[in-house]
This record gives sequence, structure tokens and C-alpha cells, in this order.
Amino acid sequence: MSDQKAQIGVVGLAVMGKNLALNIESRGFTVGVYNRSRAKTDNMMKDHSEKKLVPSFTVEDFVNSLETPRRILMMVKAGKPTDAVIDELLPLLDKGDVLIDGGNTNFHDTMARNAKLDKSGINFIGMGVSGGELGALQGPSLMPGGQKEAYDLVAPILEQIAAKAEDGKPCVSYIGPNGAGHYVKMVHNGIEYGDEELIDESYNILRNVAGLSMDELADTFKEWNEGELDSYLVEITADILTRKDDLGDDKNLPIVDAILDRGANKGTGKWSSEDALAIGVPQSVITESVYARYISMLKDERVAASKVLAGPTEKVEFDKSTIVEKVRQALFFGKIMSYAQGFEQLRFASEEYDWNLQFGQLAQIWREGCIIRAQFLQTITDAFEKDPKLTNLLLDDYFKDISAKYQSATREVVALAIKAGVPVPSLSAAVTYYDSYRAEVLPANLLQAQRDYFGAHTYERVDRPGNFHYSWYEEQ
Amino acid sequence: MSDQKAQIGVVGLAVMGKNLALNIESRGFTVGVYNRSRAKTDNMMKDHSEKKLVPSFTVEDFVNSLETPRRILMMVKAGKPTDAVIDELLPLLDKGDVLIDGGNTNFHDTMARNAKLDKSGINFIGMGVSGGELGALQGPSLMPGGQKEAYDLVAPILEQIAAKAEDGKPCVSYIGPNGAGHYVKMVHNGIEYGDEELIDESYNILRNVAGLSMDELADTFKEWNEGELDSYLVEITADILTRKDDLGDDKNLPIVDAILDRGANKGTGKWSSEDALAIGVPQSVITESVYARYISMLKDERVAASKVLAGPTEKVEFDKSTIVEKVRQALFFGKIMSYAQGFEQLRFASEEYDWNLQFGQLAQIWREGCIIRAQFLQTITDAFEKDPKLTNLLLDDYFKDISAKYQSATREVVALAIKAGVPVPSLSAAVTYYDSYRAEVLPANLLQAQRDYFGAHTYERVDRPGNFHYSWYEEQ
Repeated sequence: MSDQKAQIGVVGLAVMGKNLALNIESRGFTVGVYNRSRAKTDNMMKDHSEKKLVPSFTVEDFVNSLETPRRILMMVKAGKPTDAVIDELLPLLDKGDVLIDGGNTNFHDTMARNAKLDKSGINFIGMGVSGGELGALQGPSLMPGGQKEAYDLVAPILEQIAAKAEDGKPCVSYIGPNGAGHYVKMVHNGIEYGDEELIDESYNILRNVAGLSMDELADTFKEWNEGELDSYLVEITADILTRKDDLGDDKNLPIVDAILDRGANKGTGKWSSEDALAIGVPQSVITESVYARYISMLKDERVAASKVLAGPTEKVEFDKSTIVEKVRQALFFGKIMSYAQGFEQLRFASEEYDWNLQFGQLAQIWREGCIIRAQFLQTITDAFEKDPKLTNLLLDDYFKDISAKYQSATREVVALAIKAGVPVPSLSAAVTYYDSYRAEVLPANLLQAQRDYFGAHTYERVDRPGNFHYSWYEEQ
Repeated sequence: MSDQKAQIGVVGLAVMGKNLALNIESRGFTVGVYNRSRAKTDNMMKDHSEKKLVPSFTVEDFVNSLETPRRILMMVKAGKPTDAVIDELLPLLDKGDVLIDGGNTNFHDTMARNAKLDKSGINFIGMGVSGGELGALQGPSLMPGGQKEAYDLVAPILEQIAAKAEDGKPCVSYIGPNGAGHYVKMVHNGIEYGDEELIDESYNILRNVAGLSMDELADTFKEWNEGELDSYLVEITADILTRKDDLGDDKNLPIVDAILDRGANKGTGKWSSEDALAIGVPQSVITESVYARYISMLKDERVAASKVLAGPTEKVEFDKSTIVEKVRQALFFGKIMSYAQGFEQLRFASEEYDWNLQFGQLAQIWREGCIIRAQFLQTITDAFEKDPKLTNLLLDDYFKDISAKYQSATREVVALAIKAGVPVPSLSAAVTYYDSYRAEVLPANLLQAQRDYFGAHTYERVDRPGNFHYSWYEEQ
């Protein structure tokens, strides 16, 4: 053990933990590192012997290697492994120490751990980390939630290691108490699911309705990436569509066509939809993107169904010279609805869990480092800077105008896909959300009548306050 | 206390408990009744002094008033009140006694209670009860889950009080172990949400796109109720649409137009979507119906948005002579997709929770007594009788053929509504589910490429087993 105390310690040296430790070290900090099994630590020290890393091989040595108040970043698997590390560390920590969980933890668990540790005087930060392995090393987007005073103790380090936006601002800020950081990361991932599904549906329409070749598809996404849709996901989509199979016999086969269409997931998108349902937010675009992955997993069922379930028989008509631009507008429109729902979810959650989220700051720290990074996030930042109390993104002038401008093409594209038999679950959810949100009257009045009829659930009236019940069973 | 022992006892004499007790008594059984506060028991005895009811005013007397093994039906609020009653009863019960929870309990709670009580040798049945107050009195649909031997002890009573289908069969059967009964009730309620939303969207299209008058709407639903759509919910919709305001100044105002369009919910539909997300089932039609209620609750936001968010500018064209029939086909198509998803959810749940659900029997006991009762349930019963291992309803000949026949009108109606700016979240989810389910290839191959690109998540291939990673960052 070195004599120099480390300014921060990292527990868990799998690729994310290792890369974050190296990122921190590269900004001039001395970093204590510890892993349950010795081999990972040995390997890391062998590869980086010249760096200001202080390895430990027992948890006691690790804790002793850190400056007080201690700052410890846990990068271990969510769930039981995280609890195991906390249980090991807890007896060795002092009041005022800061424990950070940088794993993919469910915010409910983070809330419980924060409350439990707070009783022992230990600060607990649940921190969302986005950007993958490369982001961890070079600059991720960070979403830390927990005690504000604990955040202040780690802010100088986090601000150094986070990605920087075009204006130089670091992609990190204090999110809010207890589970707020992991919640915001969860919604980020839900939005990411939505972005991917909307891109994939647009690709599918262009390929299977408009009949674009793979080269034309790649060029289209490349071009789109130079305009309003400028974003990491559109950029890599353009690149992916140029790539050829690296293993099969046909070296001209696009890699996409060699890949099996079963869309996996690690659960965070699902969590975001589960909580939207729990707190009463209509989050349909993201939820449809989760379901799109689920239905894609039923590959055998789909192949069997494709042979027996009838599709449309008539060929659809469309204007070939404008279809690509219309699909671009539909994709952008869909993206706006998805983010409007995501930010509506954050607004509801802020209320529900008492977090006082700063929506503009959230958009700001997503501008770089994370998977959904995009020019688009700047327009959202701007919208909330203009009006921090904005109820729904759609009511901001920019988003209102662009939705008005693109709705017509979006309706046309969705109607075309539906008539052509090409599935558009998220794009159609986007249109129906827009139309529901701008509906002064929805048929929920009939619903309330039905509920009162069969269950005496009562209803409200348009002209006076109170709850009313109709005498349905008396003849008039 | 009477000397005669009661064959079953009911705890909780609010309207559902009281009506079930009266229903049981009316079939020739002696029923012990108990309520925490004395007044409800006194009132019930006053109104029904001539009946074979054995009132008790302490829980000890109540338990002693019952034949052994005791059969006790709890009709109390879900959650803590249910636990409180269990805790009171438990010390007084003997091994082999049967406790039935007939409340609207989350199946997770039922699973936990069943496991806990089983350790004390007490049988615990979680029973879904559908049909509202009137159903409870005259014949509900009952969905009991728990120990099979416990079901056998109560089956003679349950079969007597349940609704009877046209063929005379009682609308009750053993659902499966522990939480199976409450789960099936939860999915029933999800399906009910879907049915209601699909009806409400169809009404909205007919009214606001096709321009039908309220009389024409009422007649249309009445006519629909005489064909394939024959069902309790379509029947009451037809009746509702004939009813006039009972309170306002304009006695000719349809009651629907006096009712505020904020669709409430009691949580069971939400639970069914939450669990669909948890176990990986694409249950989009029901989920959209839950979200439709949520968005309807945002009345103030919607009214504000309706003034600023632009809708379509062009008037839509359609054939007036066929539009009503096309909407009817769309509604029936949507209903088929919703039930296909609901039964897919039951299939997944049966596997996930190890319940060995008998899908045909479930359709059978929903034919009468419950809110979703319909001629349609007979065709589902038939489908599972023909093939108990049917993977998806859509693969049954009847449903396959009717979907093929009605898909064209459905596509037209959904496209029309989308172009007209009338929200169709569940109808469009139905079409996109159909198109996703019958898609041999979905764009999830592009999704897998994206996930591998940014997160090294690997993908499967179409031509060989295993997980693969592409060298995206090496120039080709």
C-alpha cells in the first residue's frame, strides 16, 4: 500500500469501473482501486503501473487508503452484489463518508439504501452513468442523486471526468435527493429505446415500403445526420448500414441482414414504462418500443404466423419524390412526442417523489457523453431555460411550430405504413399521443358513463363540481 | 349466537360482501356474517331477519359459528385491511381451514399470503370476483386460485352462486395455485379496459369523423349488439347513448355530453400492463387503454393544448355508405388483437409462475357474470377446446380468417382517423401488433446492430448459433 492517500476509491474493476478509474486518474487525481477477486486489480496495475493508482487487496486496506471524508465509487452489478459491497464497507466507514453507486440500479433500491445508510450518517449517491465503455474512459454523462452536501464533496471530480458539451459545460449536475439520479438515468434509457425504435421503423418503411436500396438507406441516414436529426444514434445507423457481413459466405451481404431480428434488453427501458404506469403518465411511445423488443423476441412464433396471417392485398400508392423527406419529418415528429412524454414522466416523478428536478439541466447534461446525445437536446435545454415551469415540451414555441409543420407528413407516413402492412407501433403511438393531448374532449366521457353503469363508480360533470351517479336501471 | 353451525362465513359486509352472503344463503346454505363495526351487521340482520344468516359480533364467536373445516370468505379492502383480518383470524383457525380473499388484491400479495399461511396449515384462496354489485347478488364470474384441495372444499358453494352460461355451466373453475386466481382477474380487468377503449374510439370516429347523430350512434351500437359484437359492454353503450341529462337545464342533452371526460381507474388494468412488461409480453392494446385514461385525466392541459396545437387542415374523404360497417369491423379486429395479447399474457404468466392455467376454461368462465361477458368468449372457448396448446389466438382458424377478412377495413379506418386527427391509440396498437406478429423479419436486426455498436452487447446471427460482436471501430 502506498503512503499517499487516494482522493477517491473505485470498487469493482470490470470494464466500466476500470475505465472510470482511469478517467479520474487522467484528470490528476490519485485513485484507490479494489476488486473482490485479486486478478482484475493485478491486471490493471500491470497495464497501468505508471499511473497514480493505489491498489488494495482487502477492503480494510482499501478504506484506509482513502482521504477522509472518503469518496467511494462502487461499479458492481446491481442488486445483491451491490448490497454485499455496502455491507462489507459499512463497518469501516465514518460519518460523512460518501458512497456512490454507479451501477444500473433500480431507483427504488437506491431510495431504500439512501434512507438506510443515512441513519448511520453515511452519504449515499445513486449515480446514472451513460456512454458505454468508451464514455466511461473519455467522458460519460453522469446523473448523481443523493444528499446535496455529498454531491458537493464529489462534484470537483465528477465535473472533471464528465463529457463536455459544445459550450464547455460538463455533462453532470446535481439531480436531486435519494433515487433521483438513477430515475433520470432510467428515463434516459427509456428515451433511448424510443429513439432506436423510431429510427428502426423509419428504416423499415424506407426499405420495405419506399423500396430504397441499402446504399440509399445509408446515404439517407448520413444526410439526416446533417440536419435536425443530428445525433449519435442516427450517425451510427448510417455507418451500420454501410457495413458488410464479416463472417458469412457472401461478403456483400449487409451485416444487418446477417443479424437475427431478436431485440434484447437489459430491463431499464421496461422499468421506465413500469413507473410511468405506476405514477400515471401516458408514456406510450417508449412503452411501444419496449413491446417492439418483446414481440421481436418471439421469432419462431412470428415466422409461423407470417405464413398464415394475411396482409394487405392492394399495393400502396405514394409519391416517390417526397417519401424520404416525409419519413424524415415523421421520425422527427415521433422523437418530439417521445421526449415530450419522457419529460412529462420526469415532471410527474419530481412531484411524486419530491425531487425538485431541474428539467433544463437534465437536457443539458444529455447533450454529450450519453447514447441519446444530439443537437436536439440543446433545443430542449433552450425551451426549459425560456420557461423552467413548462408543463409539456409541446407547448414550447419551437416544438409547437415544428409539430404543426410536420404533422401532416407524419399522418401520411403512418397511414401509408398501416395500409402497407409494415408495423409502426411507436410512430403511430406518437401521432395518437399528439391527437389525444390536443383533444379538448376525449371519449372518456363515454367511459365514465360505462363505469358508472356497471360498477356505480360515479363520474364528474362538465358544469358543476362533485361526483354523480345516474339511475341507469330506472326506465325513463 | 344460533346453535346451528354455518357452512361458510363472510367477513366484511360492505355491498360486495353483503350481496355475496345473500347470494350464498339464497342457494340453501347457512351463512355466518361478521363485520368489524357492528352497525353493518345489525342493518343486514334487520333487512334479512328471515334468512339463514348467523351474525357474530366478535371474531371469536364468528369463528366458533362455523362448521369445520371452516370456510371463510373475506370481502374487505385490499392491502393492510386484508392483513389485519388475517392476523385476527389466524390464531383462532385450525389446520385445514380455508380462508378466501375475494378482494381486488394484487396477485403478488396473494402469492406471499398463500405461502405464509400454508406454513401454518391454513389453506388460502385468492379469488377474483367480477360482475359488480348486481353480479355478486345474482351470479358473478369467480376466479379462485390456491390449494386444489381447498378449492374442492368450497367448490360446491362456489358452483351454486356463480353465474351460469347458456350451456348451464357455472362461471367458476379452479384456476391454479397461489396467486393464479387474482392474476386471471387482473388480466380480465385489463381486457375490460381494452374493450371499453376500443368501443370509445369507435364511437369517437363515428361521431367526429363520420358525423353520426346521437340517435344514429345509439342505433348503431344496438345493431352491433345483435351480431358478432354481442356483449354486455356494447349493450350498455347502446343504452347509455339514448340517455339524457338528469340534472342540467337542457333535458335533451345526451348524458354523455354532461359527463366530464376524465377517465378514472382503480389500478387493476395498470397492474396487468405492469406485469406484461415484467414478464415480457407485448400487451400494447390494453396498455394504450390505460394510457388513454391517464391522458384523459390531464383535462386542463388538454384544453390548453387544444387551443395551440395544430391539427389536420384538409378534410378527409370517405365512403359514407360503408363507413359504419368498416368501423364495426375495426372494432371487432381490435378486440381480437386485445384478447390475443391477453391470452398470450396468461400463457407467459402460466409459465413464469408455474400455474398450469387452462386457457379454454378461463374463456368459459368469462362467458357470463363478468363485465366482459360476450358471445365472443364462446369462440375463444371453442378455439382452446380444439387445441388446448394453441400458442396465440390468431393462429386458430376462426380468428385467422376473421382477421384476414377485417384487416383491410381496419387499416382504412385507422388511417382515416389518423388523417382526421381523431385519436385511436388502441385501434392503431391493434393493427401494429398484427403487423408485427406476422412479420417474418422485424427491424430488430438493426436494433441489435445499434446495441452492439454503442454497448458491445453482441447479437445473434441468422445462419449460426452463438453471440457475435462486430468490429465497428475498425475501418473496413
